[in-house]
Amino acid sequence: MSSHRKSYGQRAADHSNPAAQLLLHTIERKKSNLAVSVDLTKTSDFLKVIDVVGPYVCLIKTHIDILEDFTPDVIERLKLLSAKHDFVVFEDRKFADIGNTVALQYSSGVHKIASWSHITNAHPVPGPSVITGLASVGLPLGRGLLLLAQMSTEGSLATGSYTDDAVRMARAHREFVIGFIAQRRMDHVGTSPSSLPDGVEDFIILTPGVSLEMSGDSMGQQYRTPEKVILENGCDVIIVGRGIYGKGTGDALDVGCVALQAEKYRTEGWNAYLKRIGSTGPTS
Amino acid sequence: MSSHRKSYGQRAADHSNPAAQLLLHTIERKKSNLAVSVDLTKTSDFLKVIDVVGPYVCLIKTHIDILEDFTPDVIERLKLLSAKHDFVVFEDRKFADIGNTVALQYSSGVHKIASWSHITNAHPVPGPSVITGLASVGLPLGRGLLLLAQMSTEGSLATGSYTDDAVRMARAHREFVIGFIAQRRMDHVGTSPSSLPDGVEDFIILTPGVSLEMSGDSMGQQYRTPEKVILENGCDVIIVGRGIYGKGTGDALDVGCVALQAEKYRTEGWNAYLKRIGSTGPTS
Repeated sequence: MSSHRKSYGQRAADHSNPAAQLLLHTIERKKSNLAVSVDLTKTSDFLKVIDVVGPYVCLIKTHIDILEDFTPDVIERLKLLSAKHDFVVFEDRKFADIGNTVALQYSSGVHKIASWSHITNAHPVPGPSVITGLASVGLPLGRGLLLLAQMSTEGSLATGSYTDDAVRMARAHREFVIGFIAQRRMDHVGTSPSSLPDGVEDFIILTPGVSLEMSGDSMGQQYRTPEKVILENGCDVIIVGRGIYGKGTGDALDVGCVALQAEKYRTEGWNAYLKRIGSTGPTS
Repeated sequence: MSSHRKSYGQRAADHSNPAAQLLLHTIERKKSNLAVSVDLTKTSDFLKVIDVVGPYVCLIKTHIDILEDFTPDVIERLKLLSAKHDFVVFEDRKFADIGNTVALQYSSGVHKIASWSHITNAHPVPGPSVITGLASVGLPLGRGLLLLAQMSTEGSLATGSYTDDAVRMARAHREFVIGFIAQRRMDHVGTSPSSLPDGVEDFIILTPGVSLEMSGDSMGQQYRTPEKVILENGCDVIIVGRGIYGKGTGDALDVGCVALQAEKYRTEGWNAYLKRIGSTGPTS
């Protein structure tokens, strides 16, 4: 049976990477495959949105390098929120350099990403050294890596043989690469069903560009619905941004409305998952 | 005549982008096509190495996000050194996200890269929106962008049609994309000589992985000599790192030795260039 027909809880048992286990258990526990991408530049807005959406998500996706008033205290408060609301943290750093450099970028600098982000991601374009460089820092800390096998932007070059190579690279480093940022499942990509039976590998698929309303922005981003992404394309986690918190700044943040939107996406994503694994009827 | 057969000074006149003009004029003025990549994690080491190699380089390449004790004061001191020694600054950020995100990463966060780095770079993998997103911030400031058309690491996916697409993407945004990080010239890549006569476009090629001694590191980096890079492959700027400053930390930094190494690379790179443009005899 293909991995994505199993429950998240069953799949957690098949993973040896601690970050993959944590994510799958969190999804099961919170009945949420919703991740919220918090792309805000002020710490106060950033922490406020996370506190509001926290109860509804399995994961918070950050761009720590856009916070203009970042201090190490932000990380302490993010950790507290992660414990309070029980979510996994994913710094969407998109590492894309040679091994020696990404190891420094991951461990050092003012942001010290490896010390607090359970999961991070990388582009496979530099070749396998981007994985081994990050693994040299992240594996001892129990971290997990997602590779960008595809992108949701118009004219992306992560297609065809690029995607195949990304999956092969991940397959060769399964102890650290726990899944992909992609638009669909990657089972059997870069190999054949006969040489790799169903269920032997289980890459977790996180999918950005999810929205119930918009069809695109002015900067090349393209959107799809939770049902399409989870049910049709077999992805595991939907990543939603401004579709949930709007502008998300200062007085413009309507806490009740944001919570309502988060719950709406959580329900949509979870019901699509229940249909996928053939469970009896959706929950509300 | 292909652009790389002209002098750097002549080429400056053909560029309309201010960052490209600045770089080409600086190379001509200082008789140096040497860039030093300063990959150090302590501010004191970082600034000290830059002060030592500054007289010999046209450009300093930074990874500002690995400085563990970064404060805004580092940027002020970097700007002073840039003025003192007359070099261009290139933050090697390798942006690789959707347009909206890279615009925030470039302009905001604690590092505010666009405010001080004359040149930065991006992977073309997200598609054209990575360029337009960065251009929305960088063009009004007179900045320039390099695309990563190739990488010097083993197993890199930036080859074949990926490289062709990168060059086509650059060609469609010539007002902001001033050149490439690549291993060789990109003239006529992704097009035909007949549809694009020699000398119509002039992308500046900056090439990492240059060393007089080493053949590789343990993390997949591969090396070539300045002569091979400038003369055989037609690249314009050689990027050298630890080949010049060694470990570069604290007491381990032998100032005289580092200056000597920098001068050696500058001479090698410049003489290769003189041979290329057919100038009479090398300078020492």
